[in-house]
Order: sequence, then structure tokens, then C-alpha cells
Amino acid sequence: LVGALLARGCPVTVLDNFSSGREEHLTPYRDNASFRLVRGDLLSVDDIATALDGVEMVYHLAANPDVKYCPGDATDKDLEQNVIATYNLLECMRRREIKKLAFSSTSAVYGISDRLPIPEVYAGRPVSLYGASKLSCEALIGAFAHLFGMTCWIFRFANIVGPRVRKRGRTVISDFVEALKRDPRSLRILGNGRQAKSYLLDRECVKAMLHVTSVVERPVEIVNLGCSDWITVDEIATIVGEEMQLDAFERTYTGTEGGWPGDVPRFRLDVSKLEGLGWRAAYTSEQAVRMSVRAVLQSGEQSHAPLEAPCSV
Amino acid sequence: LVGALLARGCPVTVLDNFSSGREEHLTPYRDNASFRLVRGDLLSVDDIATALDGVEMVYHLAANPDVKYCPGDATDKDLEQNVIATYNLLECMRRREIKKLAFSSTSAVYGISDRLPIPEVYAGRPVSLYGASKLSCEALIGAFAHLFGMTCWIFRFANIVGPRVRKRGRTVISDFVEALKRDPRSLRILGNGRQAKSYLLDRECVKAMLHVTSVVERPVEIVNLGCSDWITVDEIATIVGEEMQLDAFERTYTGTEGGWPGDVPRFRLDVSKLEGLGWRAAYTSEQAVRMSVRAVLQSGEQSHAPLEAPCSV
Repeated sequence: LVGALLARGCPVTVLDNFSSGREEHLTPYRDNASFRLVRGDLLSVDDIATALDGVEMVYHLAANPDVKYCPGDATDKDLEQNVIATYNLLECMRRREIKKLAFSSTSAVYGISDRLPIPEVYAGRPVSLYGASKLSCEALIGAFAHLFGMTCWIFRFANIVGPRVRKRGRTVISDFVEALKRDPRSLRILGNGRQAKSYLLDRECVKAMLHVTSVVERPVEIVNLGCSDWITVDEIATIVGEEMQLDAFERTYTGTEGGWPGDVPRFRLDVSKLEGLGWRAAYTSEQAVRMSVRAVLQSGEQSHAPLEAPCSV
Repeated sequence: LVGALLARGCPVTVLDNFSSGREEHLTPYRDNASFRLVRGDLLSVDDIATALDGVEMVYHLAANPDVKYCPGDATDKDLEQNVIATYNLLECMRRREIKKLAFSSTSAVYGISDRLPIPEVYAGRPVSLYGASKLSCEALIGAFAHLFGMTCWIFRFANIVGPRVRKRGRTVISDFVEALKRDPRSLRILGNGRQAKSYLLDRECVKAMLHVTSVVERPVEIVNLGCSDWITVDEIATIVGEEMQLDAFERTYTGTEGGWPGDVPRFRLDVSKLEGLGWRAAYTSEQAVRMSVRAVLQSGEQSHAPLEAPCSV
């Protein structure tokens, strides 16, 4: 997103505490006179104020990005890092009369639904604290937009994948790559392998946001952002095996319907609104996953974070 | 609610900070051995812990009840008193393994909708901080219910009216009664008078909650709670005039579509789910309003709170 905005001639300020993003991804822009980095936190109003100086529009992508709830986890992490952080941002924007906001929401706001693919008009019933917090952010943004004359775009992301997404113990692709590097003959899969979801490349996600924010301007526009198909966790395991050129490996399953507490086993977004606005994903979920697997394998990057064990169900 | 539960033989603990409710309403139960009052606040985890001692089910009706946002108001009142208060309650319930929760949500979660009457399945787009906070509470409750095996009933209230609801400067009925007592010849009406909403008597609301919680038990059941018709603010003014036996009075209007920032000018709930569960309001909106006006006039009660000026739009 930073690269794309700079390429369009927009000066960019990044506010990040690098709790999940990695500063090295910003290295290419470090010497660009139009680029400014504020190391800070949305829980600090002072940090936000510093970052908002001179800003016309905010892309709010900051969050606790982990959908999983593991027994023993704090239950207020998403309330604090997503809801209160978003409130802090909105209030600072209001005081500075900054009127435009694009927000990364999530398909997790829909929860478990009988209606698949699901269009934006149906109510979300999130089953995770993460999904609940994102729906809360959406509601707050909508109220601020209405009360204070803002223009807001809310994007409900599919699973966003690519070479630079979080690694090791946090996403299915990096999990499988790491696990099969350690033991190429067997793979443990959370759930029953039949969880089916939609995947979109990170650079496609950026393109879609920039497209939508340029073609439509209303107080609040909520848009499902993904592709129209899905693939299963089992299919992802097969792709990873193929790209690693492994022989057949044994699969074991934890066996539950979802991969973890709060997981939505099956979701598919109705993207007709997005397509009606003139944007369509260039790749299927299968292609996006395969390209991400290749990128992860080629980069050979190691995570800087310690391996986080996925919680058992 | 307290009276109805005691009449059914349930011991009742009330936790209230009396920021909007009035302690005198509890006087009839004060000497009942099954009744316990905890003066306290949901922002205090200790107060909640005291109140939850020995409790099997919680009716969570506590909130900042004021839907209005007036310029200059704090923007985090609903976030704190509704969302964080509800989180505190949920977390205390989780730690104590209290599994049943009935929650007073609101028709304000729907915001301004083209679909009237609106059923539960459609997404809310709240236009007030109050509505946004209640939708956030719903989402939090849903996630807790799913993750921690709770059984929750979420009631989206119509406008609840009756002799004991908040007075003076806070509700349309008490506003009109007070204003016409001061000056029986003219009435200033917020908005254009054509705002149309549904009204339900408080005692009917209690009956409906007790009915629904007794006939259905799922992790999360969301139910619109009201009647199927609506009346306008102008019609309410007429009813108040009739019940006060006034001659015709002059009406002036602030003229906006909604009565105040964040007001939803027209709403009507689809109550087919409620009716399908076997409960139907005994009175129309017009009857409920008329009965409330009579009760307010008969009680002749004066508010203990100072008159709060409604904010201009």
C-alpha cells in the first residue's frame, strides 16, 4: 500500500508499532522524501496526533491480527487493540477534521452463516473475539461517519496471503511450509481439513482498496474484498507439497470442524458489489495460495518471532 | 422485571448505580428476603463480582440510555458505559461459569434502513454512538457465547414507554407533558414531526423477555422486541394534548428529518420471529403511548434530575 500510494505521488506517513508488521518491509521507502515513519501505537493518543499531522486520509490497517483464541488468552486483547485503538483514531481524526478513512475489516464479521456466498447486507454473527471486535469497529466508524460528516470505506477482507504476510505458527501457508521442512513425511492439520475459505494476494488487496476508494464516495461503503471461489485446507496442503516437490506425506487431523475455537470452517464472500464497482480479482484462491507458497519458499525468510504453537482445540 | 422474577419464586440481585434508574422503584421489594441490592457500577469488576455471587442468570439492562449525541458531548460515553461495561460483565460471568445472559439491545442497531419492517437477519448500520455501542455489545456477547458455551438472548427493543421510564428532557412523552404544562398554547417539536417509531409498554417488554427466555435456548438468539405498528411524533403530541384536555396548541418544528444527530427518523421492527415464539404485544403503539401519557399525568411525579435541555440540531 505504501509503495502504491507513493507511486501515485501521495506523501505517506506510516504509524506502526511493528507488533505484527515488520519494519524491513518499509526499507525501500526509507529515503523517499515523501515517506515518513512514526513508530507508535494507536493506544497512545499522542502517537496518533503526531502521525496525523498534515494527513488527509487514513488507511487504518492496524489490529491484533490473530483470529485465534486459545484457552488462557486474555479476552480483552481485541477490545483494546482493535476497538479502543479504532476509537482513539476516530476521535483524533474528528478533532483534526480529517474526513476520509479506509478500514480493514474482515470476513470474520460474518461468523458461521447458512448463506454462502454472503453479501454485505446480511448481519454478521461473529464467533471469535477478533470478528466481534472488527464488527464493533465497523459500527463505530459508521456512527462517526454519520455524526461527523466523514467518508469511510470498510473492506471485509478474505484471507490475505503473499510473500510478506506473517510467518510461522500464524497462517496456514507458513505453518505447512515450516512443518513440512521439519518433517517432510507427515503433516498435522488443525480441524478436519475440509475448512474452505477464500484467498487473495496482498498486492491484489491493495489494488482493490485503491480502486474502490477512487470510484465511490459515500458516508459509509462496506465492500467484501476477495475472490469468488474458495479452497480447502487439504487442498492447500497438497499445493504446499507439490511446490516443495515432496512425495506423498501422511496427514493427521485434529478432527474438529473448525481449526480452532472461533474459527469459521467455511466462508465465501459474495463479491458482486466489488465487481459492480469495476474490480475483479486476477487470480483464483488456488492460484493466490500457490503463488504465496512459491514466494515463501523462494524468499527462504525465517521469522524473527519465536515459533508460536497453535493452540489445540 | 424484579417484581416478575420474585413473583416466579426467583431470588433477585439488582446491581445498579442509579445513574438513570431510580432506587424508589425498588422500594416494594426492599423487605423481600429473596431480594438483594448492590449499589455499584459495571465499570468496577469488584462490584460485578459482589453482585454475581450465587447468580445463575443475568438480565443485563445497564447502559448509558441516552441515544442523543449533542455537540460537545464526550464521544466515548457509550464505548465505556455500554461496550466496556458489557465486556466486564461477560468476563466476570466467564470466570464464574455463569452461562445465561439476557441483554437489552435496541432497534437503534439497525440505523437508517430501506427495509421496514426490518427482520433480525439484516445487517445493522447504526448512525448513533449509542446504536454502535449496542451492536458492539451484541457482537461481544455472540463471541463469548460461542467460545465459552453460554446461552444468550439479545432483545432489540422498540421504544419502551411507561410510567416509570426516565423523565424530563429525555423522552418524547415526558418532554411534551412538561412543555405543555409550562405553556399549554405552543409546543416546540424536534425534527419535522413525521418521525415514526414503534412503542411498547415497559411491563409488556418484561413479559416478552420472560416468555422468550423460557421457550427458546440457543447459544445466541436475537429477537426484535416490539409491536408491529408505529406512530409519528405529531400523533404523540396530539395524544398528549388530548389526555391533558388542552385546546389546540401551536406547533413549531426544528424542521430536520431526524429529531437530533444520530436519530433514526423512521423505524419499524419485523416482529414475526417474536410472534413465532408465541408472544404478541397486547397494545398498539398508539395505545402504549396513550397509557404512558395517562400514567405520567396521574403520577404527577417530578423528576429528581435537573431539566436537561435537548440539544438543537
